[in-house]
Amino acid sequence: MFKVKVYVTLKQGVLDPQGKAVKGALHSMDFQLVEEVRIGKYMELTVDHTENVEAQIEDMCKRLLANPVMEEYSYEIEEVVGQ
Amino acid sequence: MFKVKVYVTLKQGVLDPQGKAVKGALHSMDFQLVEEVRIGKYMELTVDHTENVEAQIEDMCKRLLANPVMEEYSYEIEEVVGQ
Repeated sequence: MFKVKVYVTLKQGVLDPQGKAVKGALHSMDFQLVEEVRIGKYMELTVDHTENVEAQIEDMCKRLLANPVMEEYSYEIEEVVGQ
Repeated sequence: MFKVKVYVTLKQGVLDPQGKAVKGALHSMDFQLVEEVRIGKYMELTVDHTENVEAQIEDMCKRLLANPVMEEYSYEIEEVVGQ
């Protein structure tokens, strides 16, 4: 079994209205120290043991988990031992 | 300046219909190896240099960024040098 952590973020230059709203909310709560907020997605996948896990994860990210036009993705694959 | 990465995930046991939908979509795309998908949030904050950054981040997570009733959060604080 593998545990895969996928991080999807907006590409630099892509506007992030959700991040802007969160920044505004934080400022209104007196967290003036916050300069910028960018919101992304974090996904945890539990995946069966197969040979080409990395290639398949790459494929999933490109085809479903991220929108390659405006998003970037990265992932970490950890082997789960002892289950 | 600090760059703070905040990860928010659903607590174990909390149902994740969005994750279930993504799992279904992945299965219908022939990624049968996926056993479970849990969807969370990932936020990148750019924060000014202040003394008690960690305490403030903790406070932001508790009060706005995560819902402590059903979500867990973790964060990494990196110092940005040379800017």
